[in-house]
Amino acid sequence: MNAPLPDLRRPVPPACLEALGAIFGDRLSVSAAVREHHGRDESPYPPMLPDAVVFAQNTDEVAQVARLCNEHRVPLIPYGAGSSLEGHLLAIEGGISLDLSQMNQVLSVNAEDLTATVQAGVTRKQLNEEIRSTGLFFPIDPGADASLGGMAATRASGTNAVRYGTMRENVMSLTVVTADGRVVRTAGRARKSSAGYDLTRIFVGSEGTLGIITEVTVRLYPQPEAVSAAVCNFPSLDDAVQSVIEIIQMGVPVARVEFMDAAAVRAVNLYSKLTLRETPMLVFEFHGSPAGVQEQAETVQAITAEHGGMDFEWAERPEDRNRLWTARHNAYFAGLQLRPGCRASTTDVCVPISRLADCVRETVDELDQASFPYTIVGHVGDGNFHVLMLLDGDNEAEWQESETINHNLVRRAIAADGTCTGEHGVGLHKMQFMQQEHGDDALALMRSLKHAFDPNNILNPGKIIAW
Amino acid sequence: MNAPLPDLRRPVPPACLEALGAIFGDRLSVSAAVREHHGRDESPYPPMLPDAVVFAQNTDEVAQVARLCNEHRVPLIPYGAGSSLEGHLLAIEGGISLDLSQMNQVLSVNAEDLTATVQAGVTRKQLNEEIRSTGLFFPIDPGADASLGGMAATRASGTNAVRYGTMRENVMSLTVVTADGRVVRTAGRARKSSAGYDLTRIFVGSEGTLGIITEVTVRLYPQPEAVSAAVCNFPSLDDAVQSVIEIIQMGVPVARVEFMDAAAVRAVNLYSKLTLRETPMLVFEFHGSPAGVQEQAETVQAITAEHGGMDFEWAERPEDRNRLWTARHNAYFAGLQLRPGCRASTTDVCVPISRLADCVRETVDELDQASFPYTIVGHVGDGNFHVLMLLDGDNEAEWQESETINHNLVRRAIAADGTCTGEHGVGLHKMQFMQQEHGDDALALMRSLKHAFDPNNILNPGKIIAW
Repeated sequence: MNAPLPDLRRPVPPACLEALGAIFGDRLSVSAAVREHHGRDESPYPPMLPDAVVFAQNTDEVAQVARLCNEHRVPLIPYGAGSSLEGHLLAIEGGISLDLSQMNQVLSVNAEDLTATVQAGVTRKQLNEEIRSTGLFFPIDPGADASLGGMAATRASGTNAVRYGTMRENVMSLTVVTADGRVVRTAGRARKSSAGYDLTRIFVGSEGTLGIITEVTVRLYPQPEAVSAAVCNFPSLDDAVQSVIEIIQMGVPVARVEFMDAAAVRAVNLYSKLTLRETPMLVFEFHGSPAGVQEQAETVQAITAEHGGMDFEWAERPEDRNRLWTARHNAYFAGLQLRPGCRASTTDVCVPISRLADCVRETVDELDQASFPYTIVGHVGDGNFHVLMLLDGDNEAEWQESETINHNLVRRAIAADGTCTGEHGVGLHKMQFMQQEHGDDALALMRSLKHAFDPNNILNPGKIIAW
Repeated sequence: MNAPLPDLRRPVPPACLEALGAIFGDRLSVSAAVREHHGRDESPYPPMLPDAVVFAQNTDEVAQVARLCNEHRVPLIPYGAGSSLEGHLLAIEGGISLDLSQMNQVLSVNAEDLTATVQAGVTRKQLNEEIRSTGLFFPIDPGADASLGGMAATRASGTNAVRYGTMRENVMSLTVVTADGRVVRTAGRARKSSAGYDLTRIFVGSEGTLGIITEVTVRLYPQPEAVSAAVCNFPSLDDAVQSVIEIIQMGVPVARVEFMDAAAVRAVNLYSKLTLRETPMLVFEFHGSPAGVQEQAETVQAITAEHGGMDFEWAERPEDRNRLWTARHNAYFAGLQLRPGCRASTTDVCVPISRLADCVRETVDELDQASFPYTIVGHVGDGNFHVLMLLDGDNEAEWQESETINHNLVRRAIAADGTCTGEHGVGLHKMQFMQQEHGDDALALMRSLKHAFDPNNILNPGKIIAW
């Protein structure tokens, strides 16, 4: 996995750097350390450094950077929290990394309308801290404390999506800087609109390749009156997955239903000092009125019992629930500890739920033959699961083996009318699957959109689809 | 309103008609009656006839028509049920109306995945009839029995959107024929995906201007275990609207909450032979478990009582509920009867809910000065309401007066960060508001998308945005 990527760097004209320096002063950096920090993400790729990093503080500054980069044909890569997983941030053609982390203001909270507007660098945890007193919350929770701009750009989701949807459903409006430095607001704050093309959802999931998201208006939700969480252990993975399928088909409005295989539970126990039973497990959370939560839990318990599920272990107190969900969110880092010094490659397929059990089972059969350890966690209510393959970073054979397993898994998911990526995005690593998933004609439409919105190919070039 | 639109017709080359005739035989029609039927919709515009009508029966036939029209630069207007409200279907540049009503097969129902795939001409009522035995239903319900293809193309919604979302949230995938006759499937059936640009939502709401939707995969929902409906009368419009605002802010998962003003109730009583009390009224529907429905109803009753709401009148039996909702869905036609022989102009603004009461109140103040009668109905849980202005079709002054009121209403809605159209779409009639709502730079992006996807401007030309 350390094979260097081809060198496609375009030279950055000195005049461009000078002009940026004149605007940004010491918020333009060409230091090796800063560039190194911005030339990587959580993917297994070796770093590919940008030529310089600019720290922007508002939309107008972003527009100035875009105009300069467009004029000089310099690649421009928006950077939020650096937590992407597929090489989204790597400067494969060089250029400017545009760090938005200083754009970290919550601009407005409209509690009556259940909306908030934030600068792109605000993280999900920061937003929830700042709105706590309103009685509202923002549910989307990828594992990392990602920035809202990055989450919108990746069409992120997480454990709550089964009930609350993904960024696709929860972004109401964006402020976007176009490739040539114009500033566009994609929509108002009405809950619905039929007023023309859906610019908001064109940019959600576009990974910085169509425009630079500088502000995000999201939907908020009332904090539920009652919350309860429970874990349920199963004799087999299949029993757990079958339970979830029935729960979804019954229409039970579970807020979260997360799967962990025995290895993932073991990793989480070690990392987060928990004592969960190390068998395939589901973690549930129920939101509603006290009576509603109880009713949901009873329905779910009846279903899990039919599939060999053991008694629920409840996490009643908020601190117990927090510990449980923090442990779940740390499953990625916990998994890494199972093989000290390893690098991880993570899969992200998502399939129609009727195909989930088969897809997981066939994948496990293959993984059990692999020469490296793995864990599985999944947002199984959405048909989305992740295999964390723990690889020796110096062992090319293991990398190739993991890639073969990943290819087979993606082929399996696409054959089941699913997708190669449920929530992580394409970046560099999934580009190889786009033709297989979408076909040539759909890719041609995507490419024509890219050409229309970024005619000089300066916006995160070389990601999602080849020019 | 009978002022003729400018004549922008492009001649249809005889070779194009001959080629279509060779393929379609008597499913190509140039008869005046058929063209007349396809040159109008439910908008107040006078008809603008296509040069010919083609009745397609499958995606491949649609692709053949698109290739011919693209080659000959002939406008091509997809036609579903003819129920659009803003002039979407008018052949202002002439060309071919492509009638999809014979594409009326439900292709597959995946009950386990809660999805169905239908041809574009299947109507919402037909779909619900065909899936009834599965225990599932499709919730989106514009007033008319529209086609699913048309509903996707208009980003339609209706009375259930407050709980179940709009076509934006409920279309999972589309089969689309591009301007040059390629066939694209926009997505698989996974509940979520981050695999590239969101082609599905690019076509949802594009009103036939970017591609021709030939198949639609939608989300289905389990029929709720318990359903109850009730009407609640209020002393004033303001009291009713304030109640809704609080209900939404509390997060009560009402399935429907519809507003009717006193005139709308009177119209519905006359048209549907009901005896509803003729004051401002809310109509609620609750979905859930028996206990959940009861709990929702109690919460809502407590809120409405605080705002002067009278006792709930329950429609307990399914036939009573059906009568009530059929009456609500017929509110448009009922309104027309208040002024025999009138033509109607319907508004469709949608605003953030915190601005709803002011927006409605200011609009009513203006309407009360108007020289024609009106009714108001609204999907108020979404901040969306319709004024039905009942106009003398021969009286130009009334048309101008209604247009002024509509302009003022749209200006008010946009100033409140809302939209000129919540669910009816742009068509011809709302094009005048697009610049005001989106601004020049956003419109430029929309235009570049249109140019990229339809470089010869053959797909429903002259709608949504000027070329």
